[in-house]
Amino acid sequence: MLTDFYEITMANGYFTNHFENTIGYYDMFFRKVPNDGGFAIMAGVQQVVEYIENLTFTEEDLAYLRSVKIFNEQFIEYLKNFKFVCDIWAVPEGMPIFPGEPILTVRGPVIQAQLVETMILLTVNHQSLIATKANRIVRAARGRAVMEFGSRRAQGADGAIYGARAAYIGGCCGTACTICDRDFGIPALGTMAHSWVQLFDSELDAFRAYAREYPSSCTLLVDTYNVLKSGVPNAIKVFNEILLPQGYRPAGIRIDSGDITYLSKKARKMLDEAGFPDCKICASNSLDEYIIRDMLMQGACVDSFGVGERLITAAPEPVFGGVYKLSGIEKADGTILPKIKISENVAKITNPGFKRLWRLYDRETGKAIADVLTLHDEVIDDSKPYEIFDPEYIWKRKVITNFRAVDIREKIFEHGRCVARYHDLNELKEYCAGQVGTLWDEVTRFENPHRYYVDLSQRLWDEKNRLLEEHAE
Amino acid sequence: MLTDFYEITMANGYFTNHFENTIGYYDMFFRKVPNDGGFAIMAGVQQVVEYIENLTFTEEDLAYLRSVKIFNEQFIEYLKNFKFVCDIWAVPEGMPIFPGEPILTVRGPVIQAQLVETMILLTVNHQSLIATKANRIVRAARGRAVMEFGSRRAQGADGAIYGARAAYIGGCCGTACTICDRDFGIPALGTMAHSWVQLFDSELDAFRAYAREYPSSCTLLVDTYNVLKSGVPNAIKVFNEILLPQGYRPAGIRIDSGDITYLSKKARKMLDEAGFPDCKICASNSLDEYIIRDMLMQGACVDSFGVGERLITAAPEPVFGGVYKLSGIEKADGTILPKIKISENVAKITNPGFKRLWRLYDRETGKAIADVLTLHDEVIDDSKPYEIFDPEYIWKRKVITNFRAVDIREKIFEHGRCVARYHDLNELKEYCAGQVGTLWDEVTRFENPHRYYVDLSQRLWDEKNRLLEEHAE
Repeated sequence: MLTDFYEITMANGYFTNHFENTIGYYDMFFRKVPNDGGFAIMAGVQQVVEYIENLTFTEEDLAYLRSVKIFNEQFIEYLKNFKFVCDIWAVPEGMPIFPGEPILTVRGPVIQAQLVETMILLTVNHQSLIATKANRIVRAARGRAVMEFGSRRAQGADGAIYGARAAYIGGCCGTACTICDRDFGIPALGTMAHSWVQLFDSELDAFRAYAREYPSSCTLLVDTYNVLKSGVPNAIKVFNEILLPQGYRPAGIRIDSGDITYLSKKARKMLDEAGFPDCKICASNSLDEYIIRDMLMQGACVDSFGVGERLITAAPEPVFGGVYKLSGIEKADGTILPKIKISENVAKITNPGFKRLWRLYDRETGKAIADVLTLHDEVIDDSKPYEIFDPEYIWKRKVITNFRAVDIREKIFEHGRCVARYHDLNELKEYCAGQVGTLWDEVTRFENPHRYYVDLSQRLWDEKNRLLEEHAE
Repeated sequence: MLTDFYEITMANGYFTNHFENTIGYYDMFFRKVPNDGGFAIMAGVQQVVEYIENLTFTEEDLAYLRSVKIFNEQFIEYLKNFKFVCDIWAVPEGMPIFPGEPILTVRGPVIQAQLVETMILLTVNHQSLIATKANRIVRAARGRAVMEFGSRRAQGADGAIYGARAAYIGGCCGTACTICDRDFGIPALGTMAHSWVQLFDSELDAFRAYAREYPSSCTLLVDTYNVLKSGVPNAIKVFNEILLPQGYRPAGIRIDSGDITYLSKKARKMLDEAGFPDCKICASNSLDEYIIRDMLMQGACVDSFGVGERLITAAPEPVFGGVYKLSGIEKADGTILPKIKISENVAKITNPGFKRLWRLYDRETGKAIADVLTLHDEVIDDSKPYEIFDPEYIWKRKVITNFRAVDIREKIFEHGRCVARYHDLNELKEYCAGQVGTLWDEVTRFENPHRYYVDLSQRLWDEKNRLLEEHAE
């Protein structure tokens, strides 16, 4: 029942208008990469699968719908016996995705395809948003560990939990959110808050107690009172006094305020001089990809980053604008009648028909050259040269050779039955890193990235233009 | 178990360090109003209550904690028999709140108060963020209806559901999210998507079918192909052809793309001329408070707004930065030892001690004059003049008279027992509107609002400065 009310009014209307057996094709796609990035990361497919596998309407739901008094009783009966029978194709999680691509397609009775719209969008929009942001932050950290620390600033509990999952796919190495360790096996990390330090009579006492409790993983928070005058000296004292005699080395210190670039350099020097060059420095405090990039450019001595609010909410662009549009209707004879949505905003015009999404990789470099949308019955034969062209500026053409063409979507539901392969989260994380590695550096730039080619096959382009001309008449 | 891992490492450490009976005071406060606004709206208290009332550790949780192998078995036993015994005070939902104020205080055993930190922050941060944003948007709409349409772009399912709840408190009149109607009684609204229009052979057929299905609440989406050439004329045709003969008037049209200011004026004229001056025009499409303000300034003929992604995620500032800090420890004799957190960032310095939060209202105008934080045993006697002063620029002083002093927080838990009054959501919405009405216009401005006074009593100010000087030595 987490569905927009209009999905239900429409489904009910389809029912009374005898569309219950009409098969539609619905594409999910997005129009813009957040933060003007060059690509996004697909995520959330596993939760779409779980949602659909558990989709039923309870007696409580049906009672509610009856109480609204605008729905047909036969329609409510239909929901009572609801059995999902659609097919779904989706880009696998962790894969880079680009504007205009059908990253997920639902084929099935329009009533059903309409009812699942809201949750499909919500799930994929949310997790793709966070995976994309996490990947940016991880790239800014240039090999240093990035931990997701945002639960307390997440937009609701699911925002925290599934946000941490998406952040892990995008490249984070762990989370502060305990339940994500219990349920997903994402390493939960965390040491102490300022409250710990404040609770004891002194910072030194607080550090001593912590070192005694967790000698093998002792990271101390050094900014409760004064980082350089009190925090770091007290940490060093405790490392010497408690850890070394027990044969332990310190894990690290964490700095959560002040000018971390400056403080980290000073702290690094103090730790090195005290004989702890292996003691890591962790930074936190409203970080994001831009601050991390600049800190490292200025030589900050930071080994790992705890990133909270700006990762878990994807500030300052907290929206992944995926939409879900009808692209075709299947006629009784199995042929597909393509459908288009036209708009005053050209960017809102859709690509009609049932499509495939191909990625062309250069066989020599392994790099992704372009994506091509074709009609569902087209195959890109990568044993021959293939001409791609810009769908807006159609005189821009390029023949590519020595490439590998991959139909990148997987079928995850077949006639309502789940056929998705289960991917382990660590596998998705590695897959993501590998696939991002196939993109040219120019596409991964933060500022003004190169626009990756997303082209249409000649047949699809012709079809789209035919429909546009039809409607223009 | 949706708690930061460090809450558990700390709680375990408190346990072994014999703090299990130490009583602490923890304040939740925030430092900055999103979007540089003049005030925020408190929300989420009801969900804090529900969370705490259901707080237990399951066998699965305990098995997980054992598996981490760093926690004491006695501590795990403690969690097994966990019984919440804290007191909690909170500002009621719907109330305007300001930076630096203890909007929620937990008093109790430090182990317990620490364990609930993450969920308290997450819940109040999220809902206050959305209620604050909704209130801005509703104020921009100057009396016109604002509907929350954001589920599909929410950050997770809870983001959609509790976001819709908070938006309603902040002043929205309904939501697109069906489950919020079923569970909270928030009116669920919604008509049709572009898919509906596309599915039929023509826009006209689609409108006819909809009007036949829902003649009493017929709102038609007019921008699938061309608003002025096709959408509005077809809508008018269907109103005349199907609604009028049945004795119904049209509910409205919705425009979801293009330049809505321009289109709405043209559409208004067409509807008026066709004899439908009562047909409402609803606008949607990435709206926020700024766009709505500008549209209305330019004379857009819009009667209601459907606001989605920028409301449900509070774009472009999707973070409410509430924090939770130790402010004092209760000694065995019941006296309170105040605690402070100092920081290189002055804004991060906390207000120590167990405090009360007073709002002073002018008896003549009913307007809020200032808030004052006092120590818990101070009472502001509003039968006498009272001097307030700026805690940073202490020579700025003002004596106020003829005012009413209200201790604005409610006790919601007493020794672990819920004593919160249940507030109906409509009551909270009205309360919010009423309380926002007590603010001077200068405070409610979007740009550069007047900073509302949040002062400290002389005793609290003295206490804070004593602690700062102590630590500076």
